[in-house]
This record gives sequence, C-alpha cells and structure tokens, in this order.
Amino acid sequence: MSAQPLFSRTAAGSVSSLGEGGLIRRIRTWLGRANPPSPFGMGDDCAVIRPARGRGLITIDPVIYGVHFDGRVSAAQAGAKLVRRNVSDIAAMGGRPLAAVVALALDGRVSTAWLGVFYRGLAREALRQGLPVVGGDVARLDGHFVATLALTGEAPGRVLARSGSRVGDWIYVTGSLGRSLPSGHHHRFRPRLAEGQWLARQPSVRAMMDVSDGLARDLPSLCPPGAVPAVYASLLPRRQGAGLREVLCDGEDYELVFSVAAASRRAALEAAWRRAFPGTRLTCIGRFVRAGHLPPDAVDLAGYHAYEHLR
Amino acid sequence: MSAQPLFSRTAAGSVSSLGEGGLIRRIRTWLGRANPPSPFGMGDDCAVIRPARGRGLITIDPVIYGVHFDGRVSAAQAGAKLVRRNVSDIAAMGGRPLAAVVALALDGRVSTAWLGVFYRGLAREALRQGLPVVGGDVARLDGHFVATLALTGEAPGRVLARSGSRVGDWIYVTGSLGRSLPSGHHHRFRPRLAEGQWLARQPSVRAMMDVSDGLARDLPSLCPPGAVPAVYASLLPRRQGAGLREVLCDGEDYELVFSVAAASRRAALEAAWRRAFPGTRLTCIGRFVRAGHLPPDAVDLAGYHAYEHLR
Repeated sequence: MSAQPLFSRTAAGSVSSLGEGGLIRRIRTWLGRANPPSPFGMGDDCAVIRPARGRGLITIDPVIYGVHFDGRVSAAQAGAKLVRRNVSDIAAMGGRPLAAVVALALDGRVSTAWLGVFYRGLAREALRQGLPVVGGDVARLDGHFVATLALTGEAPGRVLARSGSRVGDWIYVTGSLGRSLPSGHHHRFRPRLAEGQWLARQPSVRAMMDVSDGLARDLPSLCPPGAVPAVYASLLPRRQGAGLREVLCDGEDYELVFSVAAASRRAALEAAWRRAFPGTRLTCIGRFVRAGHLPPDAVDLAGYHAYEHLR
Repeated sequence: MSAQPLFSRTAAGSVSSLGEGGLIRRIRTWLGRANPPSPFGMGDDCAVIRPARGRGLITIDPVIYGVHFDGRVSAAQAGAKLVRRNVSDIAAMGGRPLAAVVALALDGRVSTAWLGVFYRGLAREALRQGLPVVGGDVARLDGHFVATLALTGEAPGRVLARSGSRVGDWIYVTGSLGRSLPSGHHHRFRPRLAEGQWLARQPSVRAMMDVSDGLARDLPSLCPPGAVPAVYASLLPRRQGAGLREVLCDGEDYELVFSVAAASRRAALEAAWRRAFPGTRLTCIGRFVRAGHLPPDAVDLAGYHAYEHLR
C-alpha cells in the first residue's frame, strides 16, 4: 500500500542530511496551518495554550514502526493514526481535544519524503479534529521510528471515568468489534468524539472507556468490585468475518464501551441515540452480575486473553 | 556509578515476565504519592487535571538510553533528569509545572529492578517540584529504552517567550556554562523555576529561553531580526575546567539566558536578583548589536557549532 519506504537508500534523502534545525523547519512546513505561530506553536521552550474549560484532560500514546504500524500502512495513515488513537482516549472520557505535542525519536536514515507524508497525514487529521499541534522534540534513535503524541483536552461538563458502574448495570458498545488490523480499521477509524460527549450528558450512563486492547482485556476495567461482566456471544457486534475470539481479543477497535444504570429507561436512551447518531450502531451486549453468578450461557471472559503489549 | 544494569540477564528479572498489566501495577507502586488516585492519576483513558490559571503551557522531551544518559548515570538520576529537563522548559517561560504523563517504549529484557529505581528517582524529583505524574503508556521497542515525558504548566502572569528582544538589549545568563556531561551537571541540575518566575515579573526582562543545546546554538533564537549577539569571552561564566569552546558548544547547561531592555536600570535589577537568589550567579555576557556591527573583540558565534542531535 505504501510506495514510500521508511528508510532512505541515499544519504541525501535521509533526515540526517537536514540536521536537527533543518528537520524542525521542515516539520513546521509540513504541519502548515496545524501549527500556530510561536509561542502558540513550535519554536519556543514551551507552547502557550488556552486553559481548559471545566476539567482538564491529558493522555499520551505513541506509534512505533513494527508495533503500531508497518510497511502495509502508508506514512499518511500512520500519522493520522497517531492523532486518532490519542483523540479516542479523550472521547472515552466525554471530552474534546485542546492541543497536541509530538516527540520524534528516529534513525538518521529515515526518509525525509516518508516523514513529510507522515506529518502531512498527521496535520490533516489534527485539522479535521480542530486540534493544533503546538510543539515537539526530535531525538536520534538507531534503527527505529517512534512518534509519541501527548494530547490535552477539556470536559466542560461531566467526566465519564472507568469507575462508577454498579451490579446490574447494562453494558453497551458502539460500532463493531474484531479484525481491526486485517480490515484496516486500526488506522482508518474515526474517534467517537461526538458520541463520547453526548454520552457524558446522559445521566443514565455511569462509566465509559474505549476498547483498545480487546473487549476481554478492557471490560474488567469497567466492572464494579465484586462483579463480573456477563456478555453474550450472540449479542456482540462483529466486524465482517470476525469470529468470537477475534471480537473479544483482537484489540485496536477504538469503540466506546459504557455502562447504563439498571433502573434507567433503556428504550428512551437507545431511541435518542438513533436520532443523534443514525449511522452508528449501538449494542447492549449484557450486564454486570455478582461474581460467582455468571449465567451459564454468558461468555467466560477469563478464557480469553487479549492483546499483550510486552510479550 | 550505576550498579544496576539496564538489561536483565535473567528472564525472571525482566519486565516481559510481568506482562503489561503487571508492569503498569508496578509503575503505580513505584510512583507512590507522585501518582494521584484515578481518574486524577493513572488507570483511566485520560487523567483529569486542574485547568491552568492564566496561560497554559505544554512541552515534551524524552530521555533515551545511549543519547541522553548511559551506564555512567544511575537509573535514579536518569529518572530525575527526565523530570528536570522538562521542568527547565517550563522555567524558561516563567511558568510553573502542573501535571506530567510518561510514555515508555522499551525492550522486554529491561531489568525490573533498574526500572523500579528509574521510576523512584523520577517520582522523588516530581514530588520535589510539587508535580503529579498522572498517566502514561507502555509499549515494546526492541533493543532500546525511551521514556518520553509531556509536561503541562501554567503562567499566572506574563509569559516570557524567546522573541521580544531589541537591538541594544543586554544579554544575561544564570549559573555557569560548559562541561555539563563530564561534571554530571546534566542530570544533577536544579531547573531554574523560581528564577524564571521572578524574571517574568521584571518588566525590564524582554525575552528568555533555557540553554540546552549550547549557547552558540541557542542564542540566535533569542536574537532580534537584523541583529547579532555580541558576547565577550572574558565575561562568560565558565564551569570549572571549561574552555571557550566547551562554554559555547557543550549543551545541556539548563541555565536561563534572557535579554534586558537597553534603557533599564541594570544595577537595580542585579541588586534585586542578589537579594532574591543570593546563591545563584547572574552574569551580563554582552548585548545584541546591529548585524554587520560586531565589535572586533566580541566572539563570532558563527565559528562555533554546538550540539547536533541528528548527525
């Protein structure tokens, strides 16, 4: 898919030929309108940003060549993915993004052309999200390419944390799960920003997170103490071609999973969702039950191991 | 100096034996009081932080094994350095730090014991600065260790940017320059936080930055258009044993360099400094002059190349 190789075969085509100052000037050009003038963008010791309204939010996530993307993903898609996976974390709290900084650690042989496409893809996605890229750093790292983005955000109203669910609460998930890598969803997805903000305004929604490491691995973080998630295989929204193990374990779904108070009017919530987001699937996949009381027809998530970053 | 090796010789002593979840639990333990309870610390999709008062600030900088530290620096010193070099950027704008997040990219063979000492050193320095470490990420990176810290801050009053100097302004620098690496200053330094905030309150101070890539390389960023810095070798504050080239080129000084309005009462500023910071040297090293009018006895900085990160 990517015509552009990460490493340049010629010294002249590599970032080391630019030197640090030259590379930073190029990065500012590539980012274009996504990088405001200094000191509100790159070029000073820090960037000056507007204070958060309501609560402040912050998150950090990298894309690493060979881990989060490889040669099958274009440089532009890798850059866009770096923005999207961080924005998805802001969405998962019901917030909106404010400002991003990007630290680059890369081999001197990385292709300037490849990096230009990476930054233009990053800038395009940032502008789409209304998000300025205000600063960064460049450092040498032999044989590798690591781009780390830190993102600040704000939540003018309620913040939806992972904690807050109770036994009996319904479990909902947006979109479809599984086969994110083979389908290309892992770099093409739209972060559920509007959906997350909408859900934070619904009093019946108690807790929320995004599904990034696979439902089997992530759902326990949403589960109240003394409870287990009882989800049903037949209810799980599957991406085309995904089997049960792929739905539960694949990771990189970047969908929202959240809990809804047991006593709430679920039909009204679902109807309001359909009016607000007619194109986006919303599925009740089960509920939290007391530990030791898992219904026999529910999936035992303990039997599924999801994506493990370090092994 | 460091008894602890970065890579473990045994599988049981390496972070891969913990798995991602186990490693993150350990990191929370190591950070201790520096990591507030979730969602104000680690454990959610984002961390919730207090909004900045005045202007918001953000910066990002890594420490990379083999680039920013090596086996001669202890794990605790490397962790402390990661905090200090970011806090120095906040100091350089006259701000104060608010909250930090840390992304780790590391080989699975990294020693758990080494990493524990790294994080305890990081936490100790963060607590000293009153800075919570509120979130992070862990990813695999074969053969390397990269820790990237993003830091938010606030400037309740004036922000001191790099721009703003005029022809004729005096150039001042705090502390001493040169031989940061051989002297150990590069990991032991105290960021000039109180000094930066004090300087931001002095109306005669026009622009400021920190000296991290060497004075010869950094000073042009402070220089107004159409001017050159005229600094004098005899005035430069040298660390013990440092020659002129080391003073101008070594980098990692983490001192403040700033400009003072030509018409201001310099003696009053210097006297006030001595009362506020009796233990910290302050030196006038020259002034900005019109380009083409460099006095013959001033140093021609163009002849000095400072630290280059990418070559």
